[in-house]
Amino acid sequence: MSAPLRIGVAGLGTVGTGVVKLLLANHAAIAERCGREIALSAVSDLDPGREHGINLDSVQWCAATDFADEETVDVVVELIGGEDGPAKALVESALAAGKPVVTANKAMIAHHGNDLAALAERHGVPLLFEAAVAGGIPILKALRESLAANEYSRVYGILNGTCNYILTKMEDSGSDFGDVLAEAQALGYAEADPAFDVEGTDSAHKIAILASIALGRAIDFAAVHIEGIRHVSAADIAYASELGYRIKLLGIAQLTDHGVEQRVHPCMVPLASPIAHVEGVYNAVVAEGDFVGRTVFEGQGAGAGATASAVVGDLMDIARGHHGPPLGVSAADFRALDTAPIERHVGPYYVRMTVIDRPGVLAEVAAVFRDHAVSIESVLQPARSPGEAVPLIMTMHDTEEAGMRAALAEVAKLDAALELPCMIRIEHL
Amino acid sequence: MSAPLRIGVAGLGTVGTGVVKLLLANHAAIAERCGREIALSAVSDLDPGREHGINLDSVQWCAATDFADEETVDVVVELIGGEDGPAKALVESALAAGKPVVTANKAMIAHHGNDLAALAERHGVPLLFEAAVAGGIPILKALRESLAANEYSRVYGILNGTCNYILTKMEDSGSDFGDVLAEAQALGYAEADPAFDVEGTDSAHKIAILASIALGRAIDFAAVHIEGIRHVSAADIAYASELGYRIKLLGIAQLTDHGVEQRVHPCMVPLASPIAHVEGVYNAVVAEGDFVGRTVFEGQGAGAGATASAVVGDLMDIARGHHGPPLGVSAADFRALDTAPIERHVGPYYVRMTVIDRPGVLAEVAAVFRDHAVSIESVLQPARSPGEAVPLIMTMHDTEEAGMRAALAEVAKLDAALELPCMIRIEHL
Repeated sequence: MSAPLRIGVAGLGTVGTGVVKLLLANHAAIAERCGREIALSAVSDLDPGREHGINLDSVQWCAATDFADEETVDVVVELIGGEDGPAKALVESALAAGKPVVTANKAMIAHHGNDLAALAERHGVPLLFEAAVAGGIPILKALRESLAANEYSRVYGILNGTCNYILTKMEDSGSDFGDVLAEAQALGYAEADPAFDVEGTDSAHKIAILASIALGRAIDFAAVHIEGIRHVSAADIAYASELGYRIKLLGIAQLTDHGVEQRVHPCMVPLASPIAHVEGVYNAVVAEGDFVGRTVFEGQGAGAGATASAVVGDLMDIARGHHGPPLGVSAADFRALDTAPIERHVGPYYVRMTVIDRPGVLAEVAAVFRDHAVSIESVLQPARSPGEAVPLIMTMHDTEEAGMRAALAEVAKLDAALELPCMIRIEHL
Repeated sequence: MSAPLRIGVAGLGTVGTGVVKLLLANHAAIAERCGREIALSAVSDLDPGREHGINLDSVQWCAATDFADEETVDVVVELIGGEDGPAKALVESALAAGKPVVTANKAMIAHHGNDLAALAERHGVPLLFEAAVAGGIPILKALRESLAANEYSRVYGILNGTCNYILTKMEDSGSDFGDVLAEAQALGYAEADPAFDVEGTDSAHKIAILASIALGRAIDFAAVHIEGIRHVSAADIAYASELGYRIKLLGIAQLTDHGVEQRVHPCMVPLASPIAHVEGVYNAVVAEGDFVGRTVFEGQGAGAGATASAVVGDLMDIARGHHGPPLGVSAADFRALDTAPIERHVGPYYVRMTVIDRPGVLAEVAAVFRDHAVSIESVLQPARSPGEAVPLIMTMHDTEEAGMRAALAEVAKLDAALELPCMIRIEHL
């Protein structure tokens, strides 16, 4: 058996502590499976005094900035977080010093992954970040290696457990977004400042990384179209159910005639779709390849245990000497694929309007859609007393988003329209 | 870029032809992703004259027995099939000659995997067989590598698409096994001789391999408890639905206090379980690890494309120089874990009896179960006219299988019992 692989863990928060616990608990099995021991050599933390519930007596404490030069550290595990600042500085210094890096930092990879991957390649060292996308689900390695014989046409998934928990609870309880969010915060499933999750940024980081690895091009986070789940109402969830759908926040990357679509937004997915049954804090990723067809990967997308599993999985690949380009192919082999603007998206739509129930309103609304070449598939209008506000629900056949948006802007200006229409894209997955 | 990896494909049936098609179609992407071209160098087939729909003009034809000595072949792909005979002879000669082997042959690995893995280790060459278990789903590599930081407590799955197709169709149509089987045969989803699939042998091959890799011990196919789906009736499927379950043929390997359970049989799984929603010819495998929790992998378990994806994925690992013990750990590190006999299995049960509807029958049946310490959880007895045959459906709380079997044998002997009772294990997955 080779000499132990000595690692330095920067950041002893929930995930860092989980990594240390895992390395201690499964030490023997890890060594048997990768032919080499993985030994914790050094740690760093801004607050060395805090209690972690682990014995760190035999471990060296140092400053994160010293890891690159520290002789007892073969691999740096970056768990500090934050897209810039000390996390990025540490990763850059480690790679420049020829040390492999493992990180769970999706924001950093989404924003700076191209540069960091190039730096890793230049120095001939691994940079691995399985934990950055969908936590314990080993989707990045599956795309880079296991399924790599395929050309991928689409990859998509439920990439944020907080949003999936909220949508699941909204469906189960019939409650509105705000109430369920407050409950999720009380239970620790949502942050005190939930914007990063519920506005879709976190999912966008992940789909930008998935799009790069699946489609063989540079990461382009800035081009991801992002909508969160704040505007999803209990009414929409109920109508979705009536129409045979569930509402999920998906990240989707797909090749189209107009380039690569990268988008994060609430979707109505058919009940028969595997992803419709992924509940609560679970994540799921679906990859579609030309030979393998549809493959679905489901598991915990966050939490100390699942994230530690992914981090240590990466460390084991380094221990084995397995090593490839961080984004699946070398930067020199990236494909020149444009990003398609969301206005070019084509698909079916769900629209909920609130209108005054008086003669001629349906004709007015239908005429607007007709004028924009939007073809109505179905209409649902619950009975109300004439003159009252009434919901008007429609689903549309495949339509280009630009026309859909123009039609909705015009519908919103009708005298009979009492609220801005709510639009949710339907995905036949 | 290194020199091309030259492969020889033995057996140009559906899968072999699929592998050749994939290598041609995605040639450039494969080379980019593994840093090396994979080139088809030689093929063998018992019937070289048959039409494969691929151009093999530039490829050398030879006898499978010659691959080991053939200088232009770096890696042998065995797609001949059959647990012994030419397939095994070819694999042995290739490994002995120091050539890596990729195979899709589950019967051969289930029966001879320990010896072949030892041979591969002795000669220091890879032996890979991702396609042997669950087709396109990359579960073996996930267990060996991606999730390998975990100790696994259980791995289970829907491992045979033919059986899952039949059970799905039985549920959708309300038809009986025989009718659906005939239809599946007409559509090509079941073989003319379906025994291998519907009697559970195929699933047993796969769970024996999964059990070894997940639990770190030698393959023990002979110890798998096997029941097929022939005895599952339309009535059982309907009652399962009434009770909130679906019936799936599962292969299950799990660590218990009595050793490793390895079993293949129809199971009632709760509707809320992810595996309950895997329909038709799809396969799914669930791995439970101590840190990652539950992970679910779903995809096509058979077919030329999905199987070729797995075979070429293995070839790409060889092209990269990634190489580890075929069964996840070296034979020297195998754990000495006993196989638990099925009689020691503990779990809930579903039982359907057909009895004469007369006073006292329920009391008689209940007394038998009481005498064997089997605790009844629920009873379902549709109304019929007195004196007629009536189905009596019960579910039992956790019970040891030995007691359950003894009770059922006694129930079968009651005067009021008109048929042998049907028992299906319930799995709370």
